[in-house]
Amino acid sequence: MKNVAVIGLGLMGGSLALELKKSTWATIYGIDKNPEHLQKAVDLGIIFEKVDIEKVKEVDTVILAAPVNVIPELALQVLDRIGDDTLVFDVGSTKTMVCDAVRNHPKRKNFVALHPIAGTEFSGPEAAIYDLFKGKVNIICEQQLSESRILEKAVKLFELLKMRNVFMDSPVQHDKHIAYVSHLSHISSFMLGKTVLEIENDEKNIFDMAGSGFASTVRLAKSNPNTWTPILLQNKEYVLKSLEEYIKNLNQFKEVLTKNSEEEVYQIMQNTNRIKGVLAGIKNN
Amino acid sequence: MKNVAVIGLGLMGGSLALELKKSTWATIYGIDKNPEHLQKAVDLGIIFEKVDIEKVKEVDTVILAAPVNVIPELALQVLDRIGDDTLVFDVGSTKTMVCDAVRNHPKRKNFVALHPIAGTEFSGPEAAIYDLFKGKVNIICEQQLSESRILEKAVKLFELLKMRNVFMDSPVQHDKHIAYVSHLSHISSFMLGKTVLEIENDEKNIFDMAGSGFASTVRLAKSNPNTWTPILLQNKEYVLKSLEEYIKNLNQFKEVLTKNSEEEVYQIMQNTNRIKGVLAGIKNN
Repeated sequence: MKNVAVIGLGLMGGSLALELKKSTWATIYGIDKNPEHLQKAVDLGIIFEKVDIEKVKEVDTVILAAPVNVIPELALQVLDRIGDDTLVFDVGSTKTMVCDAVRNHPKRKNFVALHPIAGTEFSGPEAAIYDLFKGKVNIICEQQLSESRILEKAVKLFELLKMRNVFMDSPVQHDKHIAYVSHLSHISSFMLGKTVLEIENDEKNIFDMAGSGFASTVRLAKSNPNTWTPILLQNKEYVLKSLEEYIKNLNQFKEVLTKNSEEEVYQIMQNTNRIKGVLAGIKNN
Repeated sequence: MKNVAVIGLGLMGGSLALELKKSTWATIYGIDKNPEHLQKAVDLGIIFEKVDIEKVKEVDTVILAAPVNVIPELALQVLDRIGDDTLVFDVGSTKTMVCDAVRNHPKRKNFVALHPIAGTEFSGPEAAIYDLFKGKVNIICEQQLSESRILEKAVKLFELLKMRNVFMDSPVQHDKHIAYVSHLSHISSFMLGKTVLEIENDEKNIFDMAGSGFASTVRLAKSNPNTWTPILLQNKEYVLKSLEEYIKNLNQFKEVLTKNSEEEVYQIMQNTNRIKGVLAGIKNN
């Protein structure tokens, strides 16, 4: 890896660039439609210099880290331009649309559809940090459509970042699962924030009483709507399904609470404590 | 403060005992209806020895840290027994019922109704930790019903723990606010955990994809149902009100997502980002 182009210099693209700068000898070029972000990325030492899309002809690795509504078209533009040995991958939180977009492109074999499951609630080049990816999972979809040496290059890159690569053939399956364990969390958090902000209009100083539990549950409500609007819309089918099940559970809980059913309130929470075992395996931020 | 009795040796009572042991010369006696917890508290050095309720006659400070359904009756039993100079306070997450229970007791002036807003998702004596309270808020209700020298003693005790005391006259107002900023977070978190555990039955390995955002949002679903069932039932009126508003917001979000209204999805999240300013003021766990 000698020359890398990163398109989209927010939290994900910026953090990837920092890691590659630190761990390899590659020169990193940046592309972003926001000129302020681009300049900031230069100033912060995240990229060597700003370039335009034509630069991808000369690099050996292209990272697509733009919002997910932009990625499919962007992937095609990049695949149209790259050489035979170039690795192109995107890091978006949805995989179906980008996989569909590139499936019949002559350079499909140069593309790897992946999703490094890492992030914070912050955004923009200033949010780029080291060790964001360390110890976490990287999902790779439709690996059989990538050429083996190209796939190998991607696998090694994420091993270098100390990620665990997990192969998950179907991008549809990816999108379904991620709706539950990521996208739904964002909605539940945003709506909790909204509910409490609304009551605050009538009840001043309510936030004097907010503690670390509230802070943890509502943390994702700080996330960037520019990132999350396209994710939720693009994965609408599964996001709505998970949201309906979530609302159904909330309504059921409301019912048992309304009828004072101590035993049922207890049992529901007790059964859900099983989440402890699951969380023990997740690396904290 | 020379002799302190702590009734209930879980996360709250245990952590208070540890801090008082560290910061004062008081001897700490423990009462708990669970003999294993009591023995564990001795073994961990949290209490000097196990005692029974009659011991409160001889101590100068009594801390009620039992589940909130037990506290009102317990407070009466303790007030029946204490001397004229003894401070009694409870640390429960609801204040209306305990305040109502003790309001006409001849020793009401020895009681301070308070709520140190601190906690973790863990429980039992093993969960007791140092610095749980540091930098956080302690709410004191109906302070005018406590004798001034008794109130002063409570205020100083929580200053010693480096808490900020906030006076909030009405226990009903306390319970209303805390429903939104604490109790609702627990329900939203438990139901998120439940929803994802249910889908996991059909979709194996879904938790491979769970990241730090999910972990943060679902953290409170590890909380102890023995603690939380009585809190939610006791504060049912306001908990249900907050829960209804939360469900209403989720349904509204579901609608705008269903009709693909990019602008509305964006705006709702953007407006909720205002939570950033609120969270900046909350001390992390």
